[in-house]
Amino acid sequence: MMEHMNPQLAAGTKVLAFDVFGTVVDWYKSVMQELGAMNLDVDRNKFTLAWRAGYMPAIQKVMSGELGWTSIDDLHRMVLDELLETFQVLHLTEAEKRNLNKAWHRLEAWPDAVEGLTRLKSRYTICTMSNGNIGLLANMSKSASLPWDCILSAEVFRKYKPDPATYLGVAQVFDIAPGEVMMVAAHQDDLAHARACGLQTAYIERPLEYGPFQHKDVSPNADNTLHARNLVELAVALGC
Amino acid sequence: MMEHMNPQLAAGTKVLAFDVFGTVVDWYKSVMQELGAMNLDVDRNKFTLAWRAGYMPAIQKVMSGELGWTSIDDLHRMVLDELLETFQVLHLTEAEKRNLNKAWHRLEAWPDAVEGLTRLKSRYTICTMSNGNIGLLANMSKSASLPWDCILSAEVFRKYKPDPATYLGVAQVFDIAPGEVMMVAAHQDDLAHARACGLQTAYIERPLEYGPFQHKDVSPNADNTLHARNLVELAVALGC
Repeated sequence: MMEHMNPQLAAGTKVLAFDVFGTVVDWYKSVMQELGAMNLDVDRNKFTLAWRAGYMPAIQKVMSGELGWTSIDDLHRMVLDELLETFQVLHLTEAEKRNLNKAWHRLEAWPDAVEGLTRLKSRYTICTMSNGNIGLLANMSKSASLPWDCILSAEVFRKYKPDPATYLGVAQVFDIAPGEVMMVAAHQDDLAHARACGLQTAYIERPLEYGPFQHKDVSPNADNTLHARNLVELAVALGC
Repeated sequence: MMEHMNPQLAAGTKVLAFDVFGTVVDWYKSVMQELGAMNLDVDRNKFTLAWRAGYMPAIQKVMSGELGWTSIDDLHRMVLDELLETFQVLHLTEAEKRNLNKAWHRLEAWPDAVEGLTRLKSRYTICTMSNGNIGLLANMSKSASLPWDCILSAEVFRKYKPDPATYLGVAQVFDIAPGEVMMVAAHQDDLAHARACGLQTAYIERPLEYGPFQHKDVSPNADNTLHARNLVELAVALGC
């Protein structure tokens, strides 16, 4: 189900830059499992969604300057500490909290991700362009066998997506034009910001990103260069 | 020929951080070949050694503040432009100069490097900690099939080795103690600076780093945690 493919644009692509949370890895299932393994007496679905939802306001505090530069690890921890109070989980040791917070270093890949990335890597440079900190992305990529050519992170540019410095930073790192970079994400807003910087864009459907109880609209947007159900389909569309 | 191994120290190692030029890739042979392919009427041995030798004074200009932050690509180009004048090579087009400067993106790995790194990766996180810019390291690693878990560069920390921010930065990125990082390099001065920051160190002999006409002292220094002839020998010493 390839739609909106523009072979001429895609032909100029040199680097594929991937959003990671939700696009390449299944944070919902992974965090749910970690909470389950700890036997916490909470509504795991609500806890997981709230932890993820707390991430954007936390990022915005950094983007607005209210907070100085703070890594996603530290932002995840701030949100976690609030949630543990809200959900009245008061018995965890510091070591347990630290370990739970590192659940985000252990997210599992979507079933198509390793095959899709491996195929794409044969023809393109593939890198992350995630708000996750470098260590988080490296640990996750190692445990999930994600074969990146390079891990790029907001941490490299000291700006969080959707700051243009992140999208344009990918092009600058590789000394290529913004139009030679294709941003790949399961989120239309991420892609819209990338497009505004002159990048090509590929949308990946991840209808279960927020779990089985929350609907996600995965309908195509004609402004994207490509629309694919998963990363293997993207690889096929890009001739890999 | 393993010397000075300290198994207790090595047991605490989580991340191996590699110097790249000379340690993992053979810049001398690669640059010599690129000059040869261009049929330049110069003493290739002298030109190659002078290009590499020009790198340190250029870095020092950045470290002293005389130059603002400048990538290795741009420093290589500054040195190249001077050398082309010194060697009276005046006929190259801008495109040819740009391409020649990117010779550093195409350096070949030492024959043991891919096997050694692949084995080390099975047990440790392996990353670069090079003064090379991220794009240079990523392009080189892709063309030479170097299987890094993560590419770290002076560019991430906006400080060049031997600034402590680079060595300590590796530990900070991975949220581990400096003593859990082992710096791997073919240069004793690089290792001495890493050691001063609390890192473990492994010296790799590369007697031909400067080509067949220039002697390189590769004798052991007892202050290093490990001393190995090449990266396969390092892998064996580290139980991989």
